[in-house]
Amino acid sequence: MNQYKNFFPIMRRYKDLAYLDNAATTQKPDMVIDAVDNYYKQENANPLRGLYALSQKATEAYENAREKIANFIGAAKHQEIIYTRNASESLNLVAYSLSDLLLKENDEVLISIMEHHSNMIPWQQAVKRHHAKLVYLYPDKNGLITTDELKNKLSPKTKILSLTQLSNVLGAKQNLKELIKIAHANKTVVSIDGAQAIPHSKIDVQALDCDFYSFSGHKIYAPMGIGVLYGKEKYLNEMPPFLTGGEMIDYVDEQTATFAELPYKFEAGTQNVGGAVGLSAAIDFMNSIGYDTIIKRETELGRFAGEELSKLPYVTIYGDKDFSHHHGVIAFNIEGIHPHDVASLMDSGDVAIRGGHHCAQPLMRYLKCNFCCRASMAFYNDEEDIIKLVNRTKYIRSYFNGAK
Amino acid sequence: MNQYKNFFPIMRRYKDLAYLDNAATTQKPDMVIDAVDNYYKQENANPLRGLYALSQKATEAYENAREKIANFIGAAKHQEIIYTRNASESLNLVAYSLSDLLLKENDEVLISIMEHHSNMIPWQQAVKRHHAKLVYLYPDKNGLITTDELKNKLSPKTKILSLTQLSNVLGAKQNLKELIKIAHANKTVVSIDGAQAIPHSKIDVQALDCDFYSFSGHKIYAPMGIGVLYGKEKYLNEMPPFLTGGEMIDYVDEQTATFAELPYKFEAGTQNVGGAVGLSAAIDFMNSIGYDTIIKRETELGRFAGEELSKLPYVTIYGDKDFSHHHGVIAFNIEGIHPHDVASLMDSGDVAIRGGHHCAQPLMRYLKCNFCCRASMAFYNDEEDIIKLVNRTKYIRSYFNGAK
Repeated sequence: MNQYKNFFPIMRRYKDLAYLDNAATTQKPDMVIDAVDNYYKQENANPLRGLYALSQKATEAYENAREKIANFIGAAKHQEIIYTRNASESLNLVAYSLSDLLLKENDEVLISIMEHHSNMIPWQQAVKRHHAKLVYLYPDKNGLITTDELKNKLSPKTKILSLTQLSNVLGAKQNLKELIKIAHANKTVVSIDGAQAIPHSKIDVQALDCDFYSFSGHKIYAPMGIGVLYGKEKYLNEMPPFLTGGEMIDYVDEQTATFAELPYKFEAGTQNVGGAVGLSAAIDFMNSIGYDTIIKRETELGRFAGEELSKLPYVTIYGDKDFSHHHGVIAFNIEGIHPHDVASLMDSGDVAIRGGHHCAQPLMRYLKCNFCCRASMAFYNDEEDIIKLVNRTKYIRSYFNGAK
Repeated sequence: MNQYKNFFPIMRRYKDLAYLDNAATTQKPDMVIDAVDNYYKQENANPLRGLYALSQKATEAYENAREKIANFIGAAKHQEIIYTRNASESLNLVAYSLSDLLLKENDEVLISIMEHHSNMIPWQQAVKRHHAKLVYLYPDKNGLITTDELKNKLSPKTKILSLTQLSNVLGAKQNLKELIKIAHANKTVVSIDGAQAIPHSKIDVQALDCDFYSFSGHKIYAPMGIGVLYGKEKYLNEMPPFLTGGEMIDYVDEQTATFAELPYKFEAGTQNVGGAVGLSAAIDFMNSIGYDTIIKRETELGRFAGEELSKLPYVTIYGDKDFSHHHGVIAFNIEGIHPHDVASLMDSGDVAIRGGHHCAQPLMRYLKCNFCCRASMAFYNDEEDIIKLVNRTKYIRSYFNGAK
C-alpha cells in the first residue's frame, strides 16, 4: 500500500480495493475524521449566538474555517465565503437569488451541454420563473468551449454565464480566464461550478475573476454535508437572501425583516460547524500533500489509465486523446456491454468505478452513448489500481465473449 | 457526575460545566460520534448511484436511517421522510414549494407570534412572492393558542397554517391535535415546526395528523448538518421540487426535466450520509434512554429551576406559572441587568445559558422585554446544574447591586 493510502482508514481496511470513484466522493483521512471528533468532544455548541466559552470556541472554529477557505481559493475577503450543504445548494442559491436580481423577460442564461444536472436544472427552473431563455454552449472534440463558441452565443441579452470548470465525464478543464474575460466584456456575470476542478487544481478566484465559485467539501476529503459558495461582495450584497430564518436577520417584525451583513445573510438556521471544521482539516491535509504532488500524480495516473485502456480495441474513451489532460477522469465504454454490468463486474474484482449517466444526461446524448463507465482518480491511487482496472476490463470482455 | 452525563465526552471533559443551552444545540454521546466515525472508516461512498460494494453499503446506511426516522415519528411511509440540512431548510422547502402549489393572490397564511424566525421569514417572503397575506395568532398567558383564537383567525382564504409545536422561549407545547383538526375542517394545510418539541416529547405525525413536520438532528443528540422534513405523500407528490440537480431527476433534456419519485425528488446533490448515520445513532440513543425517562427528568428539572428562580423577587420568568409545563425551557430576566451581561457572568461561573432575542424578535416585543435569558435543559442535566444556575443568579444580582 502506498504512503498516501496509509492516511485513510478505509484504505487500510480494504487493502485490495482500487477505489476509482473519486469524482463522486473522496475518502476521508484520519486527520479530518479526528478533527470532527475533537470538535464534538471539546468545542460543540451553537455558534454566533452564545456568550459562553463553548459557544465562543464553536464560533472561532467556524470562522477560522471560513478564513482558511478564503485563503485556499484566493478570495479577497472571508465575507465572500458562504457555507452551504454541498455544491448543488451553492448552485441553487445562485440560480434563485442572482436570477431574481438580474433576469428579466427574454433575457438569456448561458450554460454548456457538459453541465452536471446541478448546474443545469436550477437554471431551467430560473429561466422558467423569469420567462427568460436557456442557451447552450457546445464543446470541441477535446471537451473545451472555444472563445469563438462563446462569442457566437453571447448577446446583449446574456445576463449570466454558468459554467463547469471541469467536466465530471470528460475531465476537460476550461480555459476559464479567457472565457470569463470575454463574458465580462459583454457585461455577463459568471458563475463557476468548481465541484470537479478544485480536487485537481489550485484555484484562485481573484486571478480567474469569476463572480461566483461553488464547490463541495466531500470531493476534497472533507465530510459530507458541507459546501461553499464564493461570491463577489458587490453581488452578494445586492442579491436577495435565499434560505431565511435564524441568525441571518438584523431586525424582524411581523410583516418584514432586514437582513444581516455578509456572510450571515445567506446562512439560515444552525450551521454545520462540525462540517466546517472537517473542511478546514481537509484543506490542511491537501496543503500538507501539496497541489504539486496531487496534480502530478493524478495527471500521470489519468494518462496511464487512458493509454492502457485505449490499447484495447473494444474500449472507447471519451474526450481528449491526450489523457494527461483528463485530470484523472476517464470515461469509457466496453463494446457491447452495458456500463451497469461493467461496474458490477469491476466490483467483484475489487475495482470501484461508476456506470451510468453521471448526472449529465444531455452530455451523454451529445456523446451519443447515453451511459458510460467512469474511472476517476485521486492522488492516493497508484499504478497498481490502474493495472487492476485494465486487467478487469480485459476479464469482463472475455467473460462476456465467452458467454455469447 | 450523573450516569447520563457520562455518555457524553464533552461532559466528561468539562466536569464542572452546567450546560443549559440545549434548546440551541445538544451535546453528542459517544455512540453518535462513533457511528459517524465508523461510517467514514468502513462504508463511505456516494450513495444511490454506485454499483460497487462501498456505495451499496452507503446506500443501505442512508436508507436504513430513513426507515428509522420514519418509525421514530410514526410516519406511514419512509418515502415521506426528506433529508435536509436543518429544520430551517425544511421550513424553507415547505414555504417555497407548498406556497407555489397553493397560494393565490389575497390568500392567507397563518402563523403565530411565537414562531422562530425560521418559521416566520420564509412565510413573509412566500406571501410577498404570491401577493398573499401573513396573519398572526397570539397566545394566552400560558403561551397556548386557544381554539377560539384559531377559529377567529381562520377564514376561507387561509390556505396554510404553520405553527411551532413548542416555543423556544416559553416552552409551551400546543394542543396540536385539536388545532390541526380545526384547521383541516377549514381545508387549511398544516405545517409544524417541531425543532423544539421533538427533544422533549414523543412525536406521532399520524396521530397528530399534521401535513408537514420539520426538525433538526443536532437538537436531538445528532451531528449538525442533518435535518428532516416529514410530509404527507399526497402533498409531496403535488409540490414542485425545491433544490434541484443531481439524482433528483428522472429524465433531463436541454430545456426541461422530469423528477424522481419520492423522497429523491426533494434531495438535490450528494447527501449527507454521515449525518444520516449520526441521526440514526441518535435515535437509537434516545430510544435506549427512553422518552419516559427523558420527559420525567426534563419536566422535573424545569419545575425545579422555575420554582427556585421565582423565589427571587428580582427575577421575572416568562410563560406558564406551572413550571412543569415548560419542557425544561425557562426564559427569564434579572431586574436591571442586560441578558448579555447575565450570560457572560453565568459563563464565568461555569453555567452556559443564552441571552438575546432567541431568534424570536416579534415574540420578545410581544412579551415587552426585547431580550431575555434562557436556561434550557436536556435529560442529562441534574439538580446540581440547576442549583448552580440559581446560585449564580443570586451572585450576579449582588455583583451588580454592589457595583451600583
